[in-house]
Amino acid sequence: MKLLEDRIREEGEIIGDDIVKVDMFLNHRIDIELLCEIGKEFRRLFAGEKINKILTIEASGIGIACVAAQYFNVPVVFAKKGVNRNVGTDLYTGEVFSFTKNQKTDIGISKKYLTAEDRVLIIDDFIANGEAVKGLIGLCDQAGAEVKGIGICVEKGFQPGGKELREMGYHVESLAIVKSIENGVITFG
Amino acid sequence: MKLLEDRIREEGEIIGDDIVKVDMFLNHRIDIELLCEIGKEFRRLFAGEKINKILTIEASGIGIACVAAQYFNVPVVFAKKGVNRNVGTDLYTGEVFSFTKNQKTDIGISKKYLTAEDRVLIIDDFIANGEAVKGLIGLCDQAGAEVKGIGICVEKGFQPGGKELREMGYHVESLAIVKSIENGVITFG
Repeated sequence: MKLLEDRIREEGEIIGDDIVKVDMFLNHRIDIELLCEIGKEFRRLFAGEKINKILTIEASGIGIACVAAQYFNVPVVFAKKGVNRNVGTDLYTGEVFSFTKNQKTDIGISKKYLTAEDRVLIIDDFIANGEAVKGLIGLCDQAGAEVKGIGICVEKGFQPGGKELREMGYHVESLAIVKSIENGVITFG
Repeated sequence: MKLLEDRIREEGEIIGDDIVKVDMFLNHRIDIELLCEIGKEFRRLFAGEKINKILTIEASGIGIACVAAQYFNVPVVFAKKGVNRNVGTDLYTGEVFSFTKNQKTDIGISKKYLTAEDRVLIIDDFIANGEAVKGLIGLCDQAGAEVKGIGICVEKGFQPGGKELREMGYHVESLAIVKSIENGVITFG
């Protein structure tokens, strides 16, 4: 998606050779016009999948998922962090390892809001190692819900998450794939 | 807002005499059509305030704020939780006490995204004691930003947050004010 690549190139803050921060328009300050264009693009890319629910994880996925959901006319459900197996039996739960924070987080979702009737589109802002998305797939598996698509804004193509999920057969669409960051220059793939 | 009151009455899950859960349409599973109507109503209520930024706090405020922001044509910034004063000098920080969780949480926002030029609308899903909103006002005060409005979906009218903020002179608009919950019956005020 050229619009998103341009914004990353123009405004993204590069740190070293593997981090590009986009918190000026995507995940701290949020540019709503851009989010609408992202939502429309997800709708176009997953038009054939008969999505009936969008699933994301708190916090930065929520805004993207909610704006996109308008174009699909479906509800959003977000997995909560810090919810562990001890909370009760009415939750599907899992664990997500964050390489950024170097720690595990428990995630959970109410069984009422994810069921075997669901054709799910998972949406998130970033994918690197794919831990968050794999955690969400785990919740869908427990519910018997079908994962019909995975829509990512920015994929770090030099980390394995996106590639692994495609090899597992999932329909993954990343709107911008960062192939490399070298000497302050981003190359998209 | 009759639409929201009706949904709370029809679907809200009452627990004891002081809790009504609305996680089936507002803050776990999110009904996007309802969110759009909420966004339009906030736009109508704050039309005169020349809002140029919407501020909220993760996690459940983000979806509401992002959908509403489309009707204002302004960006959203959300305060992050678990960000403390030690992170750096480029943040405005504060503390929010959660009565539900009986614990304090550090909140923070990048100084780049909240400035003295901002005319801020604070949006959140619930107000009870008003701790989260007061925390966000504190961040605005540090930035020299003006708080021109506070838009809340559900106010617990039997707890003091909304009343205190109105008495402090803030323009508070709650779309549904729960006056009381008695024997499983909700009365709106």
